[in-house]
Amino acid sequence: MKHPQSSLPPGFRFHPTDEELILHYLKKKLSSSPFPVSIITDVDIYKFDPWDLPDKAASGEKEWYFFSPRDRKYPNGTRPNRAAASGYWKATGTDKVIVTSSMVDGRGEVQENIAVKKALVFYKGRPPKG
Amino acid sequence: MKHPQSSLPPGFRFHPTDEELILHYLKKKLSSSPFPVSIITDVDIYKFDPWDLPDKAASGEKEWYFFSPRDRKYPNGTRPNRAAASGYWKATGTDKVIVTSSMVDGRGEVQENIAVKKALVFYKGRPPKG
Repeated sequence: MKHPQSSLPPGFRFHPTDEELILHYLKKKLSSSPFPVSIITDVDIYKFDPWDLPDKAASGEKEWYFFSPRDRKYPNGTRPNRAAASGYWKATGTDKVIVTSSMVDGRGEVQENIAVKKALVFYKGRPPKG
Repeated sequence: MKHPQSSLPPGFRFHPTDEELILHYLKKKLSSSPFPVSIITDVDIYKFDPWDLPDKAASGEKEWYFFSPRDRKYPNGTRPNRAAASGYWKATGTDKVIVTSSMVDGRGEVQENIAVKKALVFYKGRPPKG
């Protein structure tokens, strides 16, 4: 395991809020802007099984962060392909909208939806058809 | 409020374990060794009320860390004096022993008690006698 975080002073950890993850990491990733710090590894998580992922993370003890490409089931469709090494990932629960708020001069606070957070569960075996 | 932590990259926070607090911060404080980073302020918390303390912290959103001197009720006694600005602090619950474990060559893991963590509750008004 590589742990760049171990070069941080003791007691410091990468514990981002959803808003920080989107604004400071994912948005910069998408626009190829320079990163504040390379703490999130590029890993195609669908090529692996979940128990192999922690070793591929740049840091973390109970949570691990990755940038992973999305795949589609059908080239022209929108349905995601979430088959993984020896199983598949399936969405569960309710998506959570991630909101950022900013102060606009003279108009008070403005809220903006910036992302949707999905929870996926891993199932062993072949994904069901259809 | 001063927030040195805001100079950290986004998503990084000071979230130490009890063991880290003792070994990397309190022990160094007591031996006047150099610190990894000045994230814990010296504040005599008994001179203030709890709601005034967050502003005096070097960082933190829901938790704040201070080094504070202890005071005694009687010069030759061991009972602590925990009177504060407009009230007093009183111990509650069970003390938690903080343990560190280290590997000793050929003898496996050795555990050592390094500190006791107390929870205090703040009460308004004058401390009860006796």
